[in-house]
Amino acid sequence: MEKDSYKLMKPLRGIVVPMVTPLLDRDTLDAAGLERLIEHIIAGGIHGLFILGTTGEAPSLSYRLRYELIKRVCDQVGGRIPVLVGITDTSFVESVNISRKAKDAGAQAIVLAPPYYFPAGQSELLEYLDHLTRELPLPLFLYNMPSYTKLVFEPETIRAASEYPGVVGIKDSSGNMVYFRQLQSLLKNNPDFSLLMGREELLAEAILLGGHGSVCGGANLMPELYVELYNAACSKDLQKVEVLHQKVMKLSAAIYKVGRYESSLLKGLKCALSCVGICNDFLAEPFHRFRRAEHEVIEQYVKELGINPKK
Amino acid sequence: MEKDSYKLMKPLRGIVVPMVTPLLDRDTLDAAGLERLIEHIIAGGIHGLFILGTTGEAPSLSYRLRYELIKRVCDQVGGRIPVLVGITDTSFVESVNISRKAKDAGAQAIVLAPPYYFPAGQSELLEYLDHLTRELPLPLFLYNMPSYTKLVFEPETIRAASEYPGVVGIKDSSGNMVYFRQLQSLLKNNPDFSLLMGREELLAEAILLGGHGSVCGGANLMPELYVELYNAACSKDLQKVEVLHQKVMKLSAAIYKVGRYESSLLKGLKCALSCVGICNDFLAEPFHRFRRAEHEVIEQYVKELGINPKK
Amino acid sequence: MEKDSYKLMKPLRGIVVPMVTPLLDRDTLDAAGLERLIEHIIAGGIHGLFILGTTGEAPSLSYRLRYELIKRVCDQVGGRIPVLVGITDTSFVESVNISRKAKDAGAQAIVLAPPYYFPAGQSELLEYLDHLTRELPLPLFLYNMPSYTKLVFEPETIRAASEYPGVVGIKDSSGNMVYFRQLQSLLKNNPDFSLLMGREELLAEAILLGGHGSVCGGANLMPELYVELYNAACSKDLQKVEVLHQKVMKLSAAIYKVGRYESSLLKGLKCALSCVGICNDFLAEPFHRFRRAEHEVIEQYVKELGINPKK
Amino acid sequence: MEKDSYKLMKPLRGIVVPMVTPLLDRDTLDAAGLERLIEHIIAGGIHGLFILGTTGEAPSLSYRLRYELIKRVCDQVGGRIPVLVGITDTSFVESVNISRKAKDAGAQAIVLAPPYYFPAGQSELLEYLDHLTRELPLPLFLYNMPSYTKLVFEPETIRAASEYPGVVGIKDSSGNMVYFRQLQSLLKNNPDFSLLMGREELLAEAILLGGHGSVCGGANLMPELYVELYNAACSKDLQKVEVLHQKVMKLSAAIYKVGRYESSLLKGLKCALSCVGICNDFLAEPFHRFRRAEHEVIEQYVKELGINPKK
Repeated sequence: MEKDSYKLMKPLRGIVVPMVTPLLDRDTLDAAGLERLIEHIIAGGIHGLFILGTTGEAPSLSYRLRYELIKRVCDQVGGRIPVLVGITDTSFVESVNISRKAKDAGAQAIVLAPPYYFPAGQSELLEYLDHLTRELPLPLFLYNMPSYTKLVFEPETIRAASEYPGVVGIKDSSGNMVYFRQLQSLLKNNPDFSLLMGREELLAEAILLGGHGSVCGGANLMPELYVELYNAACSKDLQKVEVLHQKVMKLSAAIYKVGRYESSLLKGLKCALSCVGICNDFLAEPFHRFRRAEHEVIEQYVKELGINPKK
Repeated sequence: MEKDSYKLMKPLRGIVVPMVTPLLDRDTLDAAGLERLIEHIIAGGIHGLFILGTTGEAPSLSYRLRYELIKRVCDQVGGRIPVLVGITDTSFVESVNISRKAKDAGAQAIVLAPPYYFPAGQSELLEYLDHLTRELPLPLFLYNMPSYTKLVFEPETIRAASEYPGVVGIKDSSGNMVYFRQLQSLLKNNPDFSLLMGREELLAEAILLGGHGSVCGGANLMPELYVELYNAACSKDLQKVEVLHQKVMKLSAAIYKVGRYESSLLKGLKCALSCVGICNDFLAEPFHRFRRAEHEVIEQYVKELGINPKK
Repeated sequence: MEKDSYKLMKPLRGIVVPMVTPLLDRDTLDAAGLERLIEHIIAGGIHGLFILGTTGEAPSLSYRLRYELIKRVCDQVGGRIPVLVGITDTSFVESVNISRKAKDAGAQAIVLAPPYYFPAGQSELLEYLDHLTRELPLPLFLYNMPSYTKLVFEPETIRAASEYPGVVGIKDSSGNMVYFRQLQSLLKNNPDFSLLMGREELLAEAILLGGHGSVCGGANLMPELYVELYNAACSKDLQKVEVLHQKVMKLSAAIYKVGRYESSLLKGLKCALSCVGICNDFLAEPFHRFRRAEHEVIEQYVKELGINPKK
Repeated sequence: MEKDSYKLMKPLRGIVVPMVTPLLDRDTLDAAGLERLIEHIIAGGIHGLFILGTTGEAPSLSYRLRYELIKRVCDQVGGRIPVLVGITDTSFVESVNISRKAKDAGAQAIVLAPPYYFPAGQSELLEYLDHLTRELPLPLFLYNMPSYTKLVFEPETIRAASEYPGVVGIKDSSGNMVYFRQLQSLLKNNPDFSLLMGREELLAEAILLGGHGSVCGGANLMPELYVELYNAACSKDLQKVEVLHQKVMKLSAAIYKVGRYESSLLKGLKCALSCVGICNDFLAEPFHRFRRAEHEVIEQYVKELGINPKK
């Protein structure tokens, strides 16, 4: 089967991994780590790969490296699961540029949060989406991430944009569950529009009450856990959901809470991946990898979570 | 005299124009407008040109266009006044890339606001500046712009960074005058460190009480006004200051307050420049030029302010 | 049975109504409306009454009127269901004063959000709770309401405070479900500590995955709906949950979304209650009742929701 | 001369002290300290006393204590300087109540920030002011304090309210000098309307360019310093202004910056006042007095600032 014949499910369902970007230094990919990470994720039964998102440190990377990453990931995945590529940018033209690289490399979809420098109004965002979607060569997921972009796609903006050609879903990472439920209500007559929960702590309830999937950072590390929880939620097995949800909460309370800053999630995740031998823990500026003290705490947590090192 | 022999004053004093970027469409410079604009500004007696800042819509432009702009501006200016180039970026590597283009084109300095996607802590910002300044080929002005970047360079961070090689000043656009006065106090033993006020409404008082200069968007339109006010403030002519300050407030209350959104300043300024025949009023997404109704309001204001059209 | 012998369940479970305060004018209770409202709510099978919360406009009311309300409500309820009284105040002493009035009137518990003027740190909030709980004569529910108080009780603060005598639960109105799930994890060894969801749109999922109850503004209007949904969620009847949750979303999308401001919920709720003949729609300053145009919209929604007028 | 014959200047000019409230414990005034503090302030040449503001911890105090304070202060001052009383409250009725106590005690004016719990829109705030000013027995100063109230009186709201009977001025504590200059422009045809700067770090420039006075917390401690600076600014003696402004910045950088939280100003000021023997340093919850380590730092600063202890 050729890559191009891969069909993106409508709606997209399941667990999508917002992949970390393994780095050797600020402008060099950890190519071997990247390969191991992709195989680890696919082996875990994951339904899709989202590269160049927040967890992938996209805004911190050079365009050259982003393009290299797109190419390498698509080649390595080889059509086994869909690849979604983040094209969020303050520059319209650069977003289009990335989308074309994604198309050329064989990705299946692209993902876009609001342009995050200028404080645009909702009608401006909608006009921006109107212009942008005309230029995009792949299906588009919108991405709500207000803590980082400071701009929200308000529910009514999402609903209006859902009628633009190629807009196929939304990933909501706000943690604001009222927002998610409002989106669901507004879009209930559009069953093909994918509602993806961007916070793994809310994966269970998102699916139980009608969400289609979840984008889970922890699935870089423990892909099976999230796939199992997703399956339990799909089959309404509340007892199993409860047990697996507790495991997700435990990972979140451990790996994402070390260190002082909001970047704890990113640092903890890369640190844990390096502890188990999957990839390097280098982070691009403005961050840096955990130093010794935090590294030891993460190492201990990885053991407690029972994650086995790769040989 | 060769371009390279241009010496940047320490501290930089006077009126710097945060130049708008004349555009024909989202990825095409209005080259003729750019030429007219530069000559208009220099003829007005301005002391420096700051391109690719917020007023220059830098984050909305493609890198290709930014590089073209740097080249064209430096060529056109030809060393008559210093050119400062904005290198603010979420990506460390891209900031360095722009700084090298600026150096190659003959610019005199670069300007940097905090990377504006990830919420970094102050110690992380300081480490980021430590790493970055090692890579930069030109003197650096820091840029405080919290309403857009959401990250602040706190006064103590500025003070610590002022000891890094090549860090020569700060442009503060917060409007928070307590912050500006605290910076002045912290840096009083560093008389070469340039304190530039980024809000033209505060130009007068910034200079009267020890600031070195001001970055004034309105000076794209009426450069002489700001130079005159700067000179009056330098010579402590309070009566003249009062009169000219009122004119600045009048321009600000007119040109920057049309339309509904925070982007009123940008839209109004480009619209006014097009009314007087200097350059096109196209704005890159996520914005758009004023439509008819607002255009007419701006046209009227331009007349009331007594700005003569260019032939 | 005497009022004092009423035992507050540990944990408190079920639907609690954050009661609106029926007013004739800014300092006069609508006593007849209050009586009708209480009987309407109790007849609907509600498990508890929360007066003087945000929905009750407590901060806008005089202390005299608050005291009168406490007395009237406790008398009217007569121990049939527990009464919880909001004591949130910027003044420690006034919070204690209200708590004593609540005790004297026969209320069963009190509810406290952070003092909302001064920006206190978490350790300061914890010390404040330490001092305050020593003075309180009734069991205390903490109340997280960051959009109004701007101060958050962080999860670790709640956990630490849960060990103070008399602290029996938390009402979370943030809408941030990650916060709610984190609280659950932190408090999992304290099964008597009540976890109440303050956003009715999240009632279903809160209960399905281990929350104890929900505080639902809409239950002023349609108490049976929320009780039924609570019961369906308790018995894990997912199909029934889905249907009733949709009704809650419909009420929320209609009644709470009329008008321009964040006060739409309060205004819409009081307006709807007046449409069905339960109580007056007067709101204390800084708000005012809906004027004609909005009133007609609410009237139409009330019909569509099939709510029958009281005779 | 009778108290009632005291005429409030229009506009009010000079230095107003936002008086701290000396406390023995959370509900007991330090009556002796209060007397010493008032005499210290009047002896320093201050032009007005503002009690029950933010620096006075008004929101943390019981109403009983606030009323006692109003009475004691007005009695002690005895008409020597005008007394302004803060009536900011989330409850309209309580604001009116305090204003009547102020009138009865012989105060000259009242001061009001927006009601700070519910997020009201500007048109709602204007209507609130319309209703409230009809009930107030004394001239009213508006008070802009967005960092604490989270609601802003926008410039156009101030201008509209300036036409209501009895509205005589504005105290702006935002630190946003663009806001202050915009107010000045909007109100330039109303020369009786008092423009008071609420941040002492900006006293000098506020006065130099047309402001009428300043409300300075540090004048609790060093009243003469602020009066001298005010006088120098009035007489446009820029050299003297520079020297005295540096002293104000030094006090601010020392006394207000000890400790971790935003409450540093309040704690430092009360601590310093206790170091020089003026009054007790008790703070009402949610704060507490500085403990030993911070106390010693403040003690050292007080010495360095050359403030002599009272016998």
